[in-house]
Amino acid sequence: MQSSDHIRSVYSRYVDLVSAGDADAVAALYAKDATLEDPIGAPLQRGRDAIRAFYKASAGAVKLALSGPVRVCGREAAAPMIATLQGADGRRAYIDIIDVMTFGEDGLITSMRAFWSPDAIRRE
Amino acid sequence: MQSSDHIRSVYSRYVDLVSAGDADAVAALYAKDATLEDPIGAPLQRGRDAIRAFYKASAGAVKLALSGPVRVCGREAAAPMIATLQGADGRRAYIDIIDVMTFGEDGLITSMRAFWSPDAIRRE
Repeated sequence: MQSSDHIRSVYSRYVDLVSAGDADAVAALYAKDATLEDPIGAPLQRGRDAIRAFYKASAGAVKLALSGPVRVCGREAAAPMIATLQGADGRRAYIDIIDVMTFGEDGLITSMRAFWSPDAIRRE
Repeated sequence: MQSSDHIRSVYSRYVDLVSAGDADAVAALYAKDATLEDPIGAPLQRGRDAIRAFYKASAGAVKLALSGPVRVCGREAAAPMIATLQGADGRRAYIDIIDVMTFGEDGLITSMRAFWSPDAIRRE
């Protein structure tokens, strides 16, 4: 059983690594057979290779920051975050997200579901 | 299909009605066969009667307020909130929560799962 502190540290590394555009390191936080749905309703990504490709596609274009505490319940957790994107017109856009993750016994992410929708993008 | 605006309004009514201690009105936001898990890991409450009893048990002791925007994805949503409790010693305690809800075609809540844990209670 992973501790709350471990799960909080994974969220912290997750936002840092996504912001750094390091898709390999982000994918390494996930279990081999993990699933990712971002945003909810989008095609499910299954397995670390598909997950790596997903993050590579947006690498460098998105900065993520936690916007409140990580809520941990056993091996499930949810946390609010803000994504900042640099638009083609140079203006920034912001998206309020909540990422729900589940974790395996080894502390790796077994699933991630991202709650956000395009209609909630706020522009500068 | 319910609109994002409807789902946001349900969250808003939910925190107001829980804060008012109106268990009957809170239960009326739920579908008859809805489920509730609060916090995640606690026994699942199934059906509107069980859900009403759950809210009656804490009626008047908890104030809820949204602490960020409701993230809506189709008929699923997540929102951060803060619960304020008045302790027996007169001191206040705060809990950071994320409530994940799903909705039926009729706009009623079909499931609610609350992400928080006792180890995250902050005392005044």
